[in-house]
Amino acid sequence: MSDEDPVSQLTEEQCWELLEKHEFGRLAFHLVGEVHITPINYTVDSERLVFRTAEGSKLLGVVMNDDVAFEIDDIDEEQATSVVLRGSAEVLEGSDREVVDSLPLRPWVDTSKSIVVAIKPSEITGRSFRLHRPWLHARGEDE
Amino acid sequence: MSDEDPVSQLTEEQCWELLEKHEFGRLAFHLVGEVHITPINYTVDSERLVFRTAEGSKLLGVVMNDDVAFEIDDIDEEQATSVVLRGSAEVLEGSDREVVDSLPLRPWVDTSKSIVVAIKPSEITGRSFRLHRPWLHARGEDE
Repeated sequence: MSDEDPVSQLTEEQCWELLEKHEFGRLAFHLVGEVHITPINYTVDSERLVFRTAEGSKLLGVVMNDDVAFEIDDIDEEQATSVVLRGSAEVLEGSDREVVDSLPLRPWVDTSKSIVVAIKPSEITGRSFRLHRPWLHARGEDE
Repeated sequence: MSDEDPVSQLTEEQCWELLEKHEFGRLAFHLVGEVHITPINYTVDSERLVFRTAEGSKLLGVVMNDDVAFEIDDIDEEQATSVVLRGSAEVLEGSDREVVDSLPLRPWVDTSKSIVVAIKPSEITGRSFRLHRPWLHARGEDE
């Protein structure tokens, strides 16, 4: 046990700052009763996340079950920071979809990705962990 | 469209090499019908992943529903590589649990984490994406 709590909670504002700074995260979603996870690149638009996906993608599991979770993180030698959000996903259509044409949302990979999905968060939590990695100093020894 | 396919599949052997090289990933799991995601540190032991968690953790959702997905990734300016596995999670007990005492599996964070969980993969896939990020060169312009 250390004197200080090694885990600190981020404020919602800090979480949004990190979400805006990043452009790559991991989306967890349901697909026919299974849980799946995939990396996505995304952008933030008015307190929601927006990403593109391809027709026929597994990601369209979100059409059947809109319950999703999303994570970004930063790690260095001293600390790890992770932001997790849970929310609902929705395929954008018509004029809703046009809104994202002005966002810096480009596919990283040059493949066709014509579907635009927005994730509206219901819950955002962020934690920062002060790392305690004794094996970096004493690999192979017990506690 | 580019001449070469910007996405390449990794072999299962390459996926295991990356899983062995990393020690931090993201676990997606079911909890009371919802999908959740959390960062974990893990180690590889004979083609399964092993991690520690705390009594009372949300992660113990895996006891109710053992269907899980796990992801690691590497990103640089040129390419992104991601390994995803799906499988089943099991809390290790008795002599099974003792096996992990010899593994380099230390909690990064100095909090009490006495439960040991193993993930046995049913499916492993890895992809490497050659990145195409025009906005790094021409931010604000269309395609």
